[in-house]
Amino acid sequence: MIEWIGLLAGALTSTSFFPQAIKVIRTKQLSSISLVMYINFTFGVALWIFYGFYLHSLSVFICNTITLIPASVILCLKVRETVQSKRMKRDSN
Amino acid sequence: MIEWIGLLAGALTSTSFFPQAIKVIRTKQLSSISLVMYINFTFGVALWIFYGFYLHSLSVFICNTITLIPASVILCLKVRETVQSKRMKRDSN
Repeated sequence: MIEWIGLLAGALTSTSFFPQAIKVIRTKQLSSISLVMYINFTFGVALWIFYGFYLHSLSVFICNTITLIPASVILCLKVRETVQSKRMKRDSN
Repeated sequence: MIEWIGLLAGALTSTSFFPQAIKVIRTKQLSSISLVMYINFTFGVALWIFYGFYLHSLSVFICNTITLIPASVILCLKVRETVQSKRMKRDSN
């Protein structure tokens, strides 16, 4: 029973980033997204993947690989938005 | 060595939500935040806490308890914003 709870927890936390990625892709609106959060989170998830791979823990490896996909999409879009807004500020000066 | 990577991964992913919580509290701007993400994620983290408590896994329990704090703050603020914007739409009709 408890393993089912662990699997459900993993499924929920891993897939929860997909709605956020879809929302920012559709709306192109990232103003309230934190760049610092997604840098830390994406790097942490990458470390979890290495950790799971090293310890042959399939659940840690798979859950975090699923999470890495939407999280890195959001990170790339946020980095692009940040670079673009800085460039516009510089050009307007 | 590998345990240090696990601890670093846990620290990064657990604390990464604090900058996002601080940003939305300061800016009061949640338009690009996904409500569906934070409902799923917060529920998933709560399950992880139960899972860690049940299996006496201190690292799972602590990491997810730390994550639950900012994640539930963001969820509450997003629910409030959603309720308020629905009320305004209804009043304007």
